[in-house]
Amino acid sequence: MYHEKDVARGVDGTFMWLMEEVGELASALREGTPEELRGEFADVIAWLTTIANVAEVDLTLALREKYGDGCPGCQKFICVCDDSEKP
Amino acid sequence: MYHEKDVARGVDGTFMWLMEEVGELASALREGTPEELRGEFADVIAWLTTIANVAEVDLTLALREKYGDGCPGCQKFICVCDDSEKP
Repeated sequence: MYHEKDVARGVDGTFMWLMEEVGELASALREGTPEELRGEFADVIAWLTTIANVAEVDLTLALREKYGDGCPGCQKFICVCDDSEKP
Repeated sequence: MYHEKDVARGVDGTFMWLMEEVGELASALREGTPEELRGEFADVIAWLTTIANVAEVDLTLALREKYGDGCPGCQKFICVCDDSEKP
């Protein structure tokens, strides 16, 4: 939807926009309405997707590689890793 | 996949993990291999989804409301907003 603008802006400029939206998401999580919260989640995902497009990263492949076979730690779809481990 | 652990951790604790992953993504954008970059994108999306689950936000609805009819500014699927405007 915004590909030409995004490429012109580049990864660095686009990352700044992502950070701004992440800040707005934090704010909405504290005191936003459900509608505002949905809007901020959508914006963060939009900017993340934008950066992936500019950096030529296939997000579907990325998710499949990392989580397509379940938790990378225990390989289960309902994680049973010890709680002291990272996630 | 991690819902029980996520709920126990809460939004605030989970947001901290998201921020750590965002930092790793920034690093990978600078000097990561394509594989590392895909891994970091997957992790950011995973933590973002986790926060949405804990906050009971429907991400599909969120994206549809905000971007389902095209750019919120110009309503086109290829944005034609003036470049001086926000995105």
